Amino acid sequence: MTYIEEKGKLLKAAEKQLSIASTKDKNIALEKVAQAIEARREEILRANQEDIEAGKASDMSAALIDRLTLNNERLDGIIEGIRTVIKLPDPIWKSNKVWTLENGLTISQMTTPLGTIGIVYESRPNVTVDAFSLALKSGNCIILRGSSSAIKSNTALVQAIKEGLSNSPISEDVVQFIDDTDRDLVLDMLRANDYIDLIIPRGGRGLIQFVIQNATVPTLQTGEGNCHTFIDESANLEDALKILINAKTQRLGVCNTCETLLVHEAIKDDFLPMAYEAIKDKIELRGCPRTLEVIQVKEATEEDYWEEYLDAILAVKVVKDVDEAIAHINKYGTKHSEAIVTESLTNANKFQRQVDASSVYVNASTRFTDGGEFGFGAEMGISTQKTHARGPVGLEQLTTYKYLIMGQGQVRE
Amino acid sequence: MTYIEEKGKLLKAAEKQLSIASTKDKNIALEKVAQAIEARREEILRANQEDIEAGKASDMSAALIDRLTLNNERLDGIIEGIRTVIKLPDPIWKSNKVWTLENGLTISQMTTPLGTIGIVYESRPNVTVDAFSLALKSGNCIILRGSSSAIKSNTALVQAIKEGLSNSPISEDVVQFIDDTDRDLVLDMLRANDYIDLIIPRGGRGLIQFVIQNATVPTLQTGEGNCHTFIDESANLEDALKILINAKTQRLGVCNTCETLLVHEAIKDDFLPMAYEAIKDKIELRGCPRTLEVIQVKEATEEDYWEEYLDAILAVKVVKDVDEAIAHINKYGTKHSEAIVTESLTNANKFQRQVDASSVYVNASTRFTDGGEFGFGAEMGISTQKTHARGPVGLEQLTTYKYLIMGQGQVRE
Repeated sequence: MTYIEEKGKLLKAAEKQLSIASTKDKNIALEKVAQAIEARREEILRANQEDIEAGKASDMSAALIDRLTLNNERLDGIIEGIRTVIKLPDPIWKSNKVWTLENGLTISQMTTPLGTIGIVYESRPNVTVDAFSLALKSGNCIILRGSSSAIKSNTALVQAIKEGLSNSPISEDVVQFIDDTDRDLVLDMLRANDYIDLIIPRGGRGLIQFVIQNATVPTLQTGEGNCHTFIDESANLEDALKILINAKTQRLGVCNTCETLLVHEAIKDDFLPMAYEAIKDKIELRGCPRTLEVIQVKEATEEDYWEEYLDAILAVKVVKDVDEAIAHINKYGTKHSEAIVTESLTNANKFQRQVDASSVYVNASTRFTDGGEFGFGAEMGISTQKTHARGPVGLEQLTTYKYLIMGQGQVRE
Repeated sequence: MTYIEEKGKLLKAAEKQLSIASTKDKNIALEKVAQAIEARREEILRANQEDIEAGKASDMSAALIDRLTLNNERLDGIIEGIRTVIKLPDPIWKSNKVWTLENGLTISQMTTPLGTIGIVYESRPNVTVDAFSLALKSGNCIILRGSSSAIKSNTALVQAIKEGLSNSPISEDVVQFIDDTDRDLVLDMLRANDYIDLIIPRGGRGLIQFVIQNATVPTLQTGEGNCHTFIDESANLEDALKILINAKTQRLGVCNTCETLLVHEAIKDDFLPMAYEAIKDKIELRGCPRTLEVIQVKEATEEDYWEEYLDAILAVKVVKDVDEAIAHINKYGTKHSEAIVTESLTNANKFQRQVDASSVYVNASTRFTDGGEFGFGAEMGISTQKTHARGPVGLEQLTTYKYLIMGQGQVRE
């Protein structure tokens, strides 16, 4: 039996219990896990310190070290995250579709857990706990594969989770952690169709592409966001400026941040200088030739339009009209979040109808694409694919359904 | 540019138009296609005759020849199928989820087409037209790869479809047919993530597994049905017999047919002889050792329980109770359709809650798992996977959604 098969068999056995567990038992388990993390705080921070030292020794960048780092405040945030999930409504065994056929059969479409979710993720150790809590609340088992740079932190966190579960009505087997950094195990995981129902990669483009190219298990592609803000001819320029500043500068390294500004040619002479003055101290602008006629910035290359900078850089392009803006977005975008600022009803409708993205904004910042902001309470990521779930992946998006059919001896004619 | 890239670019261009086409235009296009198939009837039947002759020359089985065969009656059925789809409600640009956040943003979750659907299918040429109509009505482009044994029939049908479209408001590029039987083109199709949003294999286990093992495009696994009927201790045995006969004998070669009968040990001496007498002339029974104590049938092997016979064979197993029945089903089943016949409310609930399948019946035949029977009007197949769609795949299941967010200058704090 392979390593993944061994874990898989434990998960399948645990699934039977978890898939029908009561909300009360799931919430008790989550609270016990929160308490166990609290109780093991010292040990978790010590393990994290070892990862950080190993990272420094191998010349890890300051940004990555920061992502890897846990401290008391971040651990408080992780524990608070669990308690947020406890308060969310249980998404399982609900229906808003029940109907009765002419022959008297009543069909109910009931939500059920997916089964087991696999997460392949990069350095942030908080994902270990966040993903576990969302999976457990939605009745799903979880198998976690973190990065080798966070192996000690993740191991300590998983120990705390298992300790919490062992004091609860839910089996500690519902969570499995791949504690071996052999990369072949990731491949085994991606192909474990008998044991895993959905794989979610959380990380950069390289990781996502590796998962898509190699998985036979269904995958949910999340988090790549090359987002645009288009300022239309009729835009209220004060609103446009406020929205652009928020979308680009409120937080740089996240997927719903604006990476390219598109400006209608009729207002370029008014809007570009306003935008430039407002953000030039914080953000490097790279413009198309027509942008350079108005403001003195670096010239943008074709590559700039494809780039998800996740950094203090903004590409700028002047476009002829809303159609050119839509065409640009549908070519270069990642189907994540796109915004138009306009007073034209026709253009707002056209933009929302024709732009192919999970979340399409009129007169608001793309930064709102987030499970918390949308009212989902928490999220497992933002899906940029069209199948299964699109946009913020909250508890509801981690479910499937089954049809219950109640008969009185009906047969098909 | 590869063959698939060329087709892909045509599809992407056509998607822009089709994704926002009105219901009226889509229905006109479908009616024109129905008329074109009618007008080209002779030509289609002639092409089909060539496929049949080639099949016979290469010793194709009688069953496969039958599946391949078109005649006037079957063509009538195909044309009627298109008119059924015309009458179905358009699933696109609808919402039953609109909400407003505290900050005044209104979010609407609107249904949209997936984009382009790829179908890889075996010999039945009617799939060419059925899949096209469902895709078009749901606003999706389609790329079709039929079997080489039906290449002439499919080519003639696609010509008729394109002719119909050319007299309609919808571009004929919305349908692309792979008219080259090179198997490598299937692989290219399964990996064309830039052009295809969902691949649906329609055929036997071998085809489905080939697609799952090789696709990087998201797939929808359909049609494998190793279905069970469990007769519980408290069952009304007259109902049980009627349901078993229907589930096993009404149609043999389809995915929602019963393949294994499970019988509670307390009623085996009553029910097994009844069942045996009722179906023994039509169906070969293969029983577990305890079955053989009651009726004289062939002994079942472990392989029998794994088999989707699609044939006049039924495996029979005596079980201790509902828990053993559930465990057997969850081990050997394909998550398609499962039934319990019982008068026990407790066991009915337990069976529906714990059996992991798309459709779980109490006191009715598994043969009802079908888009038409469920009231979906038509179907693209029965999904046996948990992600995206489960159970009958009708028009609604061929959609995704986007969030429209309407603001008045909101930014994130």
